[in-house]
Amino acid sequence: MTNSSSDAPRRPGEFELIAKYFAPLAAPSPGAFGLADDAAFLRVAQGDELVVTVDTLIEGVHFLRDDPPEMIAAKALRVNLSDLAAKTAAPVGYLLALSLPQWADEPWVARFSRGLAEDQKRYSVILLGGDTTATPGPLAISITALGTVPAGAGVHRSGATPGDLVFVSGTIGDAGAGLTILRESQPELPKGARTALVARYRLPEPRLGLGRRLAGIASAALDVSDGLIADLNHIAEASGVRIAVDALLIPLSSHLVELRGDNIGARTAAATAGDDYEIAFTAPAKKRDSLTRIAAETGVAITEIGRVERGGGTVLVGMDGQELSLAHRGYVHF
Amino acid sequence: MTNSSSDAPRRPGEFELIAKYFAPLAAPSPGAFGLADDAAFLRVAQGDELVVTVDTLIEGVHFLRDDPPEMIAAKALRVNLSDLAAKTAAPVGYLLALSLPQWADEPWVARFSRGLAEDQKRYSVILLGGDTTATPGPLAISITALGTVPAGAGVHRSGATPGDLVFVSGTIGDAGAGLTILRESQPELPKGARTALVARYRLPEPRLGLGRRLAGIASAALDVSDGLIADLNHIAEASGVRIAVDALLIPLSSHLVELRGDNIGARTAAATAGDDYEIAFTAPAKKRDSLTRIAAETGVAITEIGRVERGGGTVLVGMDGQELSLAHRGYVHF
Repeated sequence: MTNSSSDAPRRPGEFELIAKYFAPLAAPSPGAFGLADDAAFLRVAQGDELVVTVDTLIEGVHFLRDDPPEMIAAKALRVNLSDLAAKTAAPVGYLLALSLPQWADEPWVARFSRGLAEDQKRYSVILLGGDTTATPGPLAISITALGTVPAGAGVHRSGATPGDLVFVSGTIGDAGAGLTILRESQPELPKGARTALVARYRLPEPRLGLGRRLAGIASAALDVSDGLIADLNHIAEASGVRIAVDALLIPLSSHLVELRGDNIGARTAAATAGDDYEIAFTAPAKKRDSLTRIAAETGVAITEIGRVERGGGTVLVGMDGQELSLAHRGYVHF
Repeated sequence: MTNSSSDAPRRPGEFELIAKYFAPLAAPSPGAFGLADDAAFLRVAQGDELVVTVDTLIEGVHFLRDDPPEMIAAKALRVNLSDLAAKTAAPVGYLLALSLPQWADEPWVARFSRGLAEDQKRYSVILLGGDTTATPGPLAISITALGTVPAGAGVHRSGATPGDLVFVSGTIGDAGAGLTILRESQPELPKGARTALVARYRLPEPRLGLGRRLAGIASAALDVSDGLIADLNHIAEASGVRIAVDALLIPLSSHLVELRGDNIGARTAAATAGDDYEIAFTAPAKKRDSLTRIAAETGVAITEIGRVERGGGTVLVGMDGQELSLAHRGYVHF
């Protein structure tokens, strides 16, 4: 773990912070050298291929300063693990680039590292290295996650073929509703539903177990972060196909139905809300039975929601088979 | 290349920015999928081990907003390549996590990507993936660099043994002097020397060619970023040894001598200034001849500057063999 210099000393003992809070997270990895080196060493088993991804979370954009530090840590790690899951990879470890403003004191760092420690156990990953920097700006966390797949077995965005079916794991729209609840409070909603939906927004559940089972089954896959339709459209573009999603088939949680009812408006909102971190994928029709078995074995629902056709673009189809018009497909990036 | 969402649209077409400026940088890598996937795939040759490192550069801390974007890009990449060099690794590729404030417009991104393109050619590395995010804070760049070494051949910080000699590549103190010139102007210094010293601060030269040759030769190595004495002390700590550096042997450039003269004060300043990005390493005395040959073949000066002893800590020794007292050893981190 290296560390970057600042002309303005802010907090005593950055090396001590690393030694106290982050080195223990790297202890199980011989190639991390207790974070006391410039780089981490990692052996990739023969026949395996490395899968690597990076995502940044920024205070005020992806989380709020007052959010529990454990949860910020978990979210930063999980959005990356979700990328690995969608590529059918087994996670190995991660590098942490942490930019700390002055307000992030030692107790904050302690809680943040505790959040990482819990998720390391939960997902069998190890801190391999990183960089901590003082910043005059918002707190920022970039995590680079590394995983492996058997060489050549990884699933990409470009493999969808006309005739394939479209599937999605879990339920869609919960996280988007959770964000709305955080913003608008919605006190009329029962506390149980509020808590469940907000939790889906705050703490994604990377579908690692399911993801690994999709090797050799899915023709294309990704995790839903921008919104179901927006993300499926990435598959459509990369594969040169058209994707039609049946709005009535999109899996909604009972909590979401409690909040919004079950109607086309609610389904359209769910399909364009984002932050779901479910796996959306395409697969040949002959894989239906395998998927039923995988869903049963992993305990993660898999729902058939549409089909891959010749053409381009992604459409949401309503009850009468008509294309629904969408005000937006998902998050608008800068 | 994934992208993170912001509620405040700032700049049209982030996907377009990626497609236009970053996808071409990833084009040579089949595992990067033109940045149109969630993760990059990388095969590590049998018998090789992966080396991975991350460093963050932040506007206002590590560079200034008005610095040329090409130079910011190059520096962000090179500080990481320097870490790989010190581990004797051959660089392979990198992931870029870029946090863009509103002021960083398309021309800025274009110039930034041009800087990366030039260094990709220079150092034979390829963009493998990344993440771009809008930020309300300062511009920030986290680069994760990946390289390989023959399995088991990597050099770490912990291998120094009493009796080993201490070496450093290139010259020391130039970058620190360059920073002083930028801050204090120093108009009395001839323009050629000013330009050369400022360039050493702004654009480190990762010692990749030399680094690869140190496998099997160096017993411990790192790149000098915090300051020669501070960094050698990391080796001393990790190896459980004492390191004594002879101030009179520290290699100074003619430009630095022109600025500061050649005296103990100037040498002490050089040894504690940082940002050199030279390789400091230890090696058994019997490797002296090999190192002479390697210096000649790589065209990079290698200077013997001290010795490894029993004990702990790192000291700078003056003309009379007396320990010099240091006001500070190197950069003070937060």
